[in-house]
Amino acid sequence: MSTTAGLVIPCKAAVSWEAGKPLVIQQVEVAPPQAMEVRIKIKYTSLCHTDLYFWEAKGQTPLFPRIFGHEAAGIVESIGEGVSDLQIGDHVLPVFTGECGECGHCKSEESNMCDLLRINTDRGVMLSDGKSRFSINGNPINHFLGTSTFSEYTVVHSGCLAKINPLAPLDKVCILSCGISTGLGATLNVAKPKKGSSVAVFGLGAVGLAAAEGARIAGASRIIGVDRNPKRFEEAKKFGVTEFVNPKDHDRPVQEVIAEMTNGGVDRSVECTGNIDAMVAAFECVHDGWGVAVLVGVPNKDAVFMTKPINLLNERTLKGTFFGNYKPRTDLPSVVDMYMSKKFELEKFITHRIPFSEINKAFEYMLKGEGLRCIINMED
Amino acid sequence: MSTTAGLVIPCKAAVSWEAGKPLVIQQVEVAPPQAMEVRIKIKYTSLCHTDLYFWEAKGQTPLFPRIFGHEAAGIVESIGEGVSDLQIGDHVLPVFTGECGECGHCKSEESNMCDLLRINTDRGVMLSDGKSRFSINGNPINHFLGTSTFSEYTVVHSGCLAKINPLAPLDKVCILSCGISTGLGATLNVAKPKKGSSVAVFGLGAVGLAAAEGARIAGASRIIGVDRNPKRFEEAKKFGVTEFVNPKDHDRPVQEVIAEMTNGGVDRSVECTGNIDAMVAAFECVHDGWGVAVLVGVPNKDAVFMTKPINLLNERTLKGTFFGNYKPRTDLPSVVDMYMSKKFELEKFITHRIPFSEINKAFEYMLKGEGLRCIINMED
Repeated sequence: MSTTAGLVIPCKAAVSWEAGKPLVIQQVEVAPPQAMEVRIKIKYTSLCHTDLYFWEAKGQTPLFPRIFGHEAAGIVESIGEGVSDLQIGDHVLPVFTGECGECGHCKSEESNMCDLLRINTDRGVMLSDGKSRFSINGNPINHFLGTSTFSEYTVVHSGCLAKINPLAPLDKVCILSCGISTGLGATLNVAKPKKGSSVAVFGLGAVGLAAAEGARIAGASRIIGVDRNPKRFEEAKKFGVTEFVNPKDHDRPVQEVIAEMTNGGVDRSVECTGNIDAMVAAFECVHDGWGVAVLVGVPNKDAVFMTKPINLLNERTLKGTFFGNYKPRTDLPSVVDMYMSKKFELEKFITHRIPFSEINKAFEYMLKGEGLRCIINMED
Repeated sequence: MSTTAGLVIPCKAAVSWEAGKPLVIQQVEVAPPQAMEVRIKIKYTSLCHTDLYFWEAKGQTPLFPRIFGHEAAGIVESIGEGVSDLQIGDHVLPVFTGECGECGHCKSEESNMCDLLRINTDRGVMLSDGKSRFSINGNPINHFLGTSTFSEYTVVHSGCLAKINPLAPLDKVCILSCGISTGLGATLNVAKPKKGSSVAVFGLGAVGLAAAEGARIAGASRIIGVDRNPKRFEEAKKFGVTEFVNPKDHDRPVQEVIAEMTNGGVDRSVECTGNIDAMVAAFECVHDGWGVAVLVGVPNKDAVFMTKPINLLNERTLKGTFFGNYKPRTDLPSVVDMYMSKKFELEKFITHRIPFSEINKAFEYMLKGEGLRCIINMED
């Protein structure tokens, strides 16, 4: 037993009180975990676009005050009733989606879209009792994605925690809990390019570069990066990108440019922008007969995907993926192990490091499009 | 050597002189096969919707006079220079698309869309010299799909001929050269339902029923037939269809009806109508997480496939197929062998038999929507 188990823990958290306004680091009280929940001490967290999107609250019903954060690594402080697969001291990655292990999705080999613990961006409370575990002077503070990792301690459903190799450096593998695994898995688990094949990656942010890294690991010989920002190409080379296409440089659809470059189309494409035109282009740039396009980026809710049916009938495949098709508890530990055995590097995704006290800087970097991932050290 | 090899063969053919007008059975002259070509004696042929569609000439540039027909079985009469894998007397199925064996598609395990011999509905001549092998009084008659099986003798590129088991009854396996293989392969090669799974089939014509037959062979436990014609359900039961949905019976989209019947969606769907609304419904009725929709039917050229991206992002797969992904020469012989080993029945697809002299009756049956396949005996 930890000395804090069963007690309310007062600790520091970065609270977002209003859309688009700087987070406020202040003391919150974190209640003990209830049945099937786990309280963890966050060691490192990082900022992902989804945090920024909901913090800006431009596209959805605002829910404030709220503690954001969902890319992180931590250590189990205490466990609630019924939790049998985690113990105090375990190293874990909290994940914005979960794996109950019991539903049709969890039992399917193909799906990771758990019925019980699937991502829910609107919910600000815990699933079991509809209440928050965070409060300030007795007033509840909303959770975010069931993780709320911008807090020294947080409470997470046990189905949303991946127990990982205790030797893994938490200040690096924390970024595997969301974006990097999303891109990596989109390529390795869904697009599955063959050795020597060609892959186009749309969007060279962290997720797209992780998708490119997946293509490199799979042995693709041509990795074509597509982005409207030419500054990204130099960096993209580190992730295996061999060629670069900027749609702005051409006066015809980028899918035509890519088809011409590749004698009819790429073998695989992975779309990581969420822009609807890029989604259509990513589909239409794959080769007929065998091409597979994988959609990762989430467009705005009014977008409609449109294509001529012949593009499909000519034996192209279009698939979407969520979190790279990884099941959080079952699969993430092996992604961490892939990193530990040097199958890929995480260091090159980490462009900034800041102490928790300066968390608002991470938002500034992302708003400026500067860098890829900013690691926030909770103990600094 | 056959006694006719190298000579022009005068024989009977059903010539279509004008869009929508009855075919005229008359004598044509069939030139000997040129390099890489084979002349075959057609024993049985049947009528497929594609013949009807181009005979009606409502949606494309008319090309008359023309000899239609592409579902058939015959025997090699003579071979042209360079043909090494076929001999006089071989039993063959002519196919509307081919397999050169050399191009990227033929070399790909996944594709059957041969660069050289892919279906071409506009071409009325042979590939090698741009000329027709059919003539009447020296005036050329157009070929159709490189097969023109409504003739006692026809000339076909050797890459469009599947050499089959000589014991197979040609009056039955002739229908494997197009529609039945298309539906069967769409399910077995592309949708690949697992044992015990649910499959929705849109359109219960011959192709759709063959798709249902594929689902039955694969061990699907629920096969939901979707058609606007309620008369088709009774017949569909013979092909393994267990439930029937008529979109006209519901005041909401059929995809919602199917999702409700199946606790969130079917595992697989196969679309065999070519109606764009049915294509969208077939996609949207598959389960998130693992559902796969396969498009077979060809819509009119102005149709646009539209769906909300979230339907894809929730891990659904959308694929198109052409000729059930079968490679004509490599794969069709094994489909014939599947029939010979009683994996499926062809008899139930054959609802009419007529002599060649009455070929126009086959058009009448199809126009009335009567029956599935009408076998035309070329020797009667």
